[in-house]
Amino acid sequence: MNADIVEFYRSLMERRGLAAIVAGSPENFAHVTGFPVPSQILMRWRHAMAVVPRHGAPELVIVDMEQTTVRKRLPNAKLHIWREFSDSAMKVLAGVLGAMGLAREAIGLELDYLPAADFATLHAALPGAKLAAVHDDLARLRQIKTPREIEILRRLSRLADRAITDAFRSVHAGMSEMDIAAAVTRNVFVGGGEDYRLLIVATGERSVLPNVGPSERVLKRGDVCRVEVFPKIQGYYAGICRTAVVQTPPPHAERIWANLTACKYLLLERMKPGVSCRAIYELFLAKLREIDLPPISFVGHGIGLHLHEDPYLGTHPMIGSDADAELEAGMVLGIEPLVYETGHGFGMQNKDLVLVTETGCELLSDYCDTDRLIVVE
Amino acid sequence: MNADIVEFYRSLMERRGLAAIVAGSPENFAHVTGFPVPSQILMRWRHAMAVVPRHGAPELVIVDMEQTTVRKRLPNAKLHIWREFSDSAMKVLAGVLGAMGLAREAIGLELDYLPAADFATLHAALPGAKLAAVHDDLARLRQIKTPREIEILRRLSRLADRAITDAFRSVHAGMSEMDIAAAVTRNVFVGGGEDYRLLIVATGERSVLPNVGPSERVLKRGDVCRVEVFPKIQGYYAGICRTAVVQTPPPHAERIWANLTACKYLLLERMKPGVSCRAIYELFLAKLREIDLPPISFVGHGIGLHLHEDPYLGTHPMIGSDADAELEAGMVLGIEPLVYETGHGFGMQNKDLVLVTETGCELLSDYCDTDRLIVVE
Repeated sequence: MNADIVEFYRSLMERRGLAAIVAGSPENFAHVTGFPVPSQILMRWRHAMAVVPRHGAPELVIVDMEQTTVRKRLPNAKLHIWREFSDSAMKVLAGVLGAMGLAREAIGLELDYLPAADFATLHAALPGAKLAAVHDDLARLRQIKTPREIEILRRLSRLADRAITDAFRSVHAGMSEMDIAAAVTRNVFVGGGEDYRLLIVATGERSVLPNVGPSERVLKRGDVCRVEVFPKIQGYYAGICRTAVVQTPPPHAERIWANLTACKYLLLERMKPGVSCRAIYELFLAKLREIDLPPISFVGHGIGLHLHEDPYLGTHPMIGSDADAELEAGMVLGIEPLVYETGHGFGMQNKDLVLVTETGCELLSDYCDTDRLIVVE
Repeated sequence: MNADIVEFYRSLMERRGLAAIVAGSPENFAHVTGFPVPSQILMRWRHAMAVVPRHGAPELVIVDMEQTTVRKRLPNAKLHIWREFSDSAMKVLAGVLGAMGLAREAIGLELDYLPAADFATLHAALPGAKLAAVHDDLARLRQIKTPREIEILRRLSRLADRAITDAFRSVHAGMSEMDIAAAVTRNVFVGGGEDYRLLIVATGERSVLPNVGPSERVLKRGDVCRVEVFPKIQGYYAGICRTAVVQTPPPHAERIWANLTACKYLLLERMKPGVSCRAIYELFLAKLREIDLPPISFVGHGIGLHLHEDPYLGTHPMIGSDADAELEAGMVLGIEPLVYETGHGFGMQNKDLVLVTETGCELLSDYCDTDRLIVVE
């Protein structure tokens, strides 16, 4: 159990007048406990929930199939096991809250995650409780990373950077996008990644599509190749993207890349505590206009237990009240100057992970020199 | 757009008295349209929804970032694009339903997927509509696979089987679980898989843990290795699991494996249209008791656009009303005789994919001969 995060929860409960918070999404469960429950993220009905009361120790509600795995991680935690095919997870949760003396109290829930049908079941089982939304507050808590989280994200950043860069070095014209995917994922595991998400392999005419996985498309001279991957360790993700050309860059590619690289350095120069996210995005927009490239709606975003988190470097944050949120020391952001459609039949993207420090920022993904386009032979 | 699935939706709307169904989960969106939207499954707020009316053509509600990808797949479909940072997807959906003349009609929704906060927004934006749960009905529709779906699952079954079996042949004692993971995922992509989920690599003392990914654990003589992977093509998954021993089987391993293999053949012999899921599970339970092994709560489950679907071969189905559901031709199930804790410090599992035919069933994962334990040298 992460004692520092539990303390943050307690402060939040004080402020919001809550008696308990139920962390039930994969990201917030892992934030509190320090580890994700394997099948929860893939099968949304296999609820794993951490009940954090304002007073007393957290208790966990876990599906039967995952009890051995959770018990191994937290031998001393109080576990309540629900049976997948005969119990209702929500009724078991209601029973746990009741036994904790909270059946008539204010309980914070993640209403951006909990399905409507489950919410209705819980509400019916706890008619005297006041069920309140806390998902925005929990997302805000995750923005500032602890030293443990920063170390994991630093390790992941280098792992992802190296996995892609070395993959580009190991493939050549005549091989396919599937070969790039095979090399990247091999490198992720050999480098110590436990899993990954959102592997993007988009080459040639497919490089204009934002989030597509690998296809059988064969690499040929002049292709632009966009590759991104989010390897995973202990529930955390780092998303890194690199762009390569096969043998010879197509017309305009080097000029556009130089401009995107200038954007990267502009961001690194300006990111520091106290600067607003909106200001950084507007600086980026101004630079893009100057070099005549079309923008997307953000140039960076927080990252950690979810692939995308607040703060966004854009005009609109995910959490409405933070429109002019400022960077703070301890935030980790992905920054990604990119253009999906250059007007020349290809897209280009560079994505790095950056830690906001007390005085500025630090590039965490520093394995590959991205000043020049990577060349696939 | 899958015209056959749209027809099933229309019959369901007739039966349920609905004017439209909104397919909003990754699995049901792909069921209707024929393809998944890449980032929807990873970022739950990036809603992609297919609005299927009882009369007229389906219309799609898509997040701005994915519009080029969706447009490429369905050049002629009517798309409504919502902007990620400034629009509410639910308000855009309400507007689309209104423009279709459905603001005061009965609309079917997936309330096991739609988050409670989104449901509340939609309900407020469409006060005159009757919002009804259809997730159980849609899950039931997915149970019988179309010929296209069967071909994809057949291809995936062989791909997964081969990816694991060949990976076991390529590693040896002294290498780690990460090397197994690297080999499996390389084989998945080289074999044409677009992605995968839930890679389980559990060796030695870790083989008793149900759903764990690879660790740095090094393989040594006498280890039992459980490896499972669900490769993905066009949104579909096939989960195959194989068990190997490193060099020499530990005491009891061959006897237990022979018993699990007997269970597999018992299942293959009995699975055919008209047999109840419960009856098959009880047969399996009786066999396990005979050989003194502990059961889990199911021995098989439907599979397709979700890793686990109905029907379950167990005592309790996911959908309450189908407790005595019978097998039907066109169902595809994963069958997995397994024992996580043999009492000897290791777990063993075999998982195959099986198609229910008119007269019996067909083993789709037939690459590896699982009658004997695979040996890692």
